[in-house]
Amino acid sequence: MKKNINIAIVGLGQIGIYLYNELKSKKNEIEKKTGKKIKIVAISAKNKNKKRKYPIQKNIFFKKPLEIFKNKKIDILFECIGLSNGISRKIVETALKKRIHVITPNKALISKHGDSLAKLAEQNNVNLEFEASVAGGIPILRTIKEGLATNRINKVYGILNGTTNYILSEMENSNENFDKVLQKAQKLGYAEPGNPKLDLNGFDAFAKVRILSALSFNTKISKYNCIMEGIENIKLEDIKIASQLGLRVKLLGISQIINGKLFETVHPCLVSKKTYIGNVNGVMNAVITEGKPVGESILQGEGAGPGPTSSSLLSDLLSILRGNIKHPFGISSKKRKSVKPFNNDNYTNSLYLRFEVNDKQGVLSLITNRLTKYKISVKRIIQTPDKKNKKATIVIITHKTNEKNAKNCLSIFRGNKNILKFPTLIRLYN
Amino acid sequence: MKKNINIAIVGLGQIGIYLYNELKSKKNEIEKKTGKKIKIVAISAKNKNKKRKYPIQKNIFFKKPLEIFKNKKIDILFECIGLSNGISRKIVETALKKRIHVITPNKALISKHGDSLAKLAEQNNVNLEFEASVAGGIPILRTIKEGLATNRINKVYGILNGTTNYILSEMENSNENFDKVLQKAQKLGYAEPGNPKLDLNGFDAFAKVRILSALSFNTKISKYNCIMEGIENIKLEDIKIASQLGLRVKLLGISQIINGKLFETVHPCLVSKKTYIGNVNGVMNAVITEGKPVGESILQGEGAGPGPTSSSLLSDLLSILRGNIKHPFGISSKKRKSVKPFNNDNYTNSLYLRFEVNDKQGVLSLITNRLTKYKISVKRIIQTPDKKNKKATIVIITHKTNEKNAKNCLSIFRGNKNILKFPTLIRLYN
Repeated sequence: MKKNINIAIVGLGQIGIYLYNELKSKKNEIEKKTGKKIKIVAISAKNKNKKRKYPIQKNIFFKKPLEIFKNKKIDILFECIGLSNGISRKIVETALKKRIHVITPNKALISKHGDSLAKLAEQNNVNLEFEASVAGGIPILRTIKEGLATNRINKVYGILNGTTNYILSEMENSNENFDKVLQKAQKLGYAEPGNPKLDLNGFDAFAKVRILSALSFNTKISKYNCIMEGIENIKLEDIKIASQLGLRVKLLGISQIINGKLFETVHPCLVSKKTYIGNVNGVMNAVITEGKPVGESILQGEGAGPGPTSSSLLSDLLSILRGNIKHPFGISSKKRKSVKPFNNDNYTNSLYLRFEVNDKQGVLSLITNRLTKYKISVKRIIQTPDKKNKKATIVIITHKTNEKNAKNCLSIFRGNKNILKFPTLIRLYN
Repeated sequence: MKKNINIAIVGLGQIGIYLYNELKSKKNEIEKKTGKKIKIVAISAKNKNKKRKYPIQKNIFFKKPLEIFKNKKIDILFECIGLSNGISRKIVETALKKRIHVITPNKALISKHGDSLAKLAEQNNVNLEFEASVAGGIPILRTIKEGLATNRINKVYGILNGTTNYILSEMENSNENFDKVLQKAQKLGYAEPGNPKLDLNGFDAFAKVRILSALSFNTKISKYNCIMEGIENIKLEDIKIASQLGLRVKLLGISQIINGKLFETVHPCLVSKKTYIGNVNGVMNAVITEGKPVGESILQGEGAGPGPTSSSLLSDLLSILRGNIKHPFGISSKKRKSVKPFNNDNYTNSLYLRFEVNDKQGVLSLITNRLTKYKISVKRIIQTPDKKNKKATIVIITHKTNEKNAKNCLSIFRGNKNILKFPTLIRLYN
């Protein structure tokens, strides 16, 4: 690699502008560590004159990002727009075809088009790096690709979304309901002010699960339908009851190989307050890998925000500047296998069920009879009467049962006049 | 790098023999990931016919390791003997001079001669890799060198010795004293059966601290005198009292830059049971880095035993096979700075002091007056009488004071006839 390296940044949102400033201020340090002189020769965003956190050099600004390729000689491009398709995909593809290395924190793009983009990078002998796409500042992808390279990983899971983890922690701490805490998260910059949906409904975590699976198991990125649930339906009441039971609600992303088949999921889980994962609170992310021979490894760190993300983007940059040409997913695209999906119906867990019922004779036995019919045995039952309104809350913790059975069993409660709402279901993490 | 790679393993103890077997069984996987065919062409140990966990190829065995260089063409050598000098050093130096890449888990050697060996590796344009020297299976060195490469790290600390952490956890859990638990640890293979001293007295953890400092702060390996204390003097009684106070004893290794000066230490600490580090139990290791912009990062994993160690040795191997020629300490030896030492006397902590005294009038005031004279203020005091023997235990938790002051203050108690033993001191981690 030559000594002088030209860099372009496309997208100057929260991440892009922070990165721009970091690259400028760490030029000398980067030269010291790699022997390479970097220069930002092009930047691009929608609006040249928008007020930004750091001032930009307007003479290298391009309104249309694709113009950069015509006007500048670029060696490394940062894609910081963040779309799963459209201009993000176009720019990355164009860059790779022009033998320009690409670095991106864009999990939506990688989880959707990672396979074809990786192939393109390999064909053109350049790097496609996306450490920042999963778990912000935690170098988890590098750890799986390099640090744990010869381990046979059979499971990878964790808390992959800082926004939802903050909301769940804060609901417990402040005793405030979901909507109030979401507003707080938006004020603090943890949740998107406009549309926090992709964080809340589990989509963001799920994209990360897909990337982690591909790296951990050396497989193609899966496209299967999976169980994806967010935290929108978690009520303060559930958090309080869980707390009394020594449990905490966490949105976990889980990927594992079960009997040679791939199982990926994102859903709220009840975990013991005594476990490690039960104590990862606030905006923290944590990723746990189980492998042989290494055993269980844990990485924890700040999972969101421009600081941690930028740390990962720069680690990718240094890796490229040091001349490490690598397969984007650790091994050659040709060698990455497809894998069959595990049947979601067979996913087995203990369940937390909360029923809101009319406090009438026979309601409890209606519920327990129905559970018995489906061979779902009860581990614990807590009935709390609301005398004034002649209602009651019944919480049941069941022994293990599978998804299909649980779904069939609960279906009946949708129409019953004494069951006031369809029961809330949260899986216990085992 | 050529396609066929010849490998030598020197030292076939617990680690070496496990590695030998792993390399044999993972040949195909390694070829799949790197495109290189590896072959073990030489092994060496003291005794050819010793009973080992896995059978060895006797036709490639060398009793004298230096003979290997004369008889075989080696590309990569694993040094698994583990001495800080002598034959370990000789082999590594010879290999590097002959342009052979070296991989070693030998923290004693690296913490003592890492600077000169790194220089030698750079001069000969080969790699010297030692991921396995710190925290077994946790890829912490790679994470600092690459994952967090452009962060400014100001502190790195953690539980760096699995043996002592197991002993402390097990004393608390089983209510058994140090000697008994040590025996248990030896039976389980966690502590050396012959001489567990280097684990217990903090030396092992300290070697790791020195390596972590050099990597985190881009400095030469320090040679300064530091506070190094082991766990030999921790009594079951202290663990029980700490537990009542919501605290737990942990042997922490700590390295930080304070006002531009380097402070490195290993000593037992009292940490809150509610903190993350207070819940890393058993043989687990954990390393926490504090950096900018990334914030706090945590890595946790199994820190001892041939499985985790071998995982790190193989990650180094893959890195070399992928053709990444790197500076052993992340940046060129020429650019690594020397750093002045922080004055240990100024190290400041709250203290846990346990006095065993004769239960006589005036003894408590003797102690508190002495503390007052040195401006050490008391945060908490617990006196437990032992009426039968006319003795008492006095435990004092102090507000913060520095090392020098504490030492001077406590000195008087060495000769006093009513103070039955020199007080036990454990620092609180803040």
